[in-house]
Amino acid sequence: MTESLDAPRLAAWRAYIEASQRLFTRLEEDLRADSALSFADYHVLVLLSEAPGQRLRMGELASRLVFSPSRLTYQISTMRRRGLVAREACPDDRRGSEAVLTAAGLLALREAAPHHLRSVRAHLMDDLDDAEVACLTRIFERLGRRLRADRDASTPHPDN
Amino acid sequence: MTESLDAPRLAAWRAYIEASQRLFTRLEEDLRADSALSFADYHVLVLLSEAPGQRLRMGELASRLVFSPSRLTYQISTMRRRGLVAREACPDDRRGSEAVLTAAGLLALREAAPHHLRSVRAHLMDDLDDAEVACLTRIFERLGRRLRADRDASTPHPDN
Repeated sequence: MTESLDAPRLAAWRAYIEASQRLFTRLEEDLRADSALSFADYHVLVLLSEAPGQRLRMGELASRLVFSPSRLTYQISTMRRRGLVAREACPDDRRGSEAVLTAAGLLALREAAPHHLRSVRAHLMDDLDDAEVACLTRIFERLGRRLRADRDASTPHPDN
Repeated sequence: MTESLDAPRLAAWRAYIEASQRLFTRLEEDLRADSALSFADYHVLVLLSEAPGQRLRMGELASRLVFSPSRLTYQISTMRRRGLVAREACPDDRRGSEAVLTAAGLLALREAAPHHLRSVRAHLMDDLDDAEVACLTRIFERLGRRLRADRDASTPHPDN
């Protein structure tokens, strides 16, 4: 394996990294303007809203968000101060703790979601044809599966 | 325009956002382990190395990185402390300033680049066939052009 990328792959990589960073910055600006949530706040609210009982162990949440434990602790404490989540001891493991979605958190998500999805449509999705949507899904579902498997193989299961 | 995304576009959006965040985290971990550079450090070094005279006005650099002026000021000051860049007054505009690549910065980039590109290949590019590479390039070149045009239309030209 040589060290460099061939020209088409280098062009693809540069287009993808540059446009993605620009897109994420723009979506976060829209989200903060519409709902005073950061991208990370929004993502935490989505994950909790979809979890059974609207709660997740901190380790599971860190793994899903690809956050270090200390970054997650900070993230959850800022969201607790705003009343969006609560933090409780795990019922079946007194050393562990869980983040729990509050009613205020659910309402904040419900209010933010239509604005955010409109922004995702306007900046990205409305411009893609069906074949491009299928291609995007195929590439990134495969990538996500591979990176999750790498992670699971290389680190002990997060458990706090 | 309705507020939500259709099911295929919602699936594409979720696959893309989740895998991309996982990928960027992984690439940054590799970069820090191999070369003690952050993703942002690396990106600044690449942009300066490709600019005429290996220097860029701060406003231009902020715009290319999609950084706020204060975030760029912080970024450049951490890189100055490590000797990777210098900061100088613009020769033709005494109020403006430029970031200038140092020899140490160029050497750090040359040392980091093969590791970083190997990591981009291993985590993303080696898994894509030629049609997927072409599709990725097409989607993200178009997106980047559109977001740059939006930005140029909505904000005054950064000039400091």
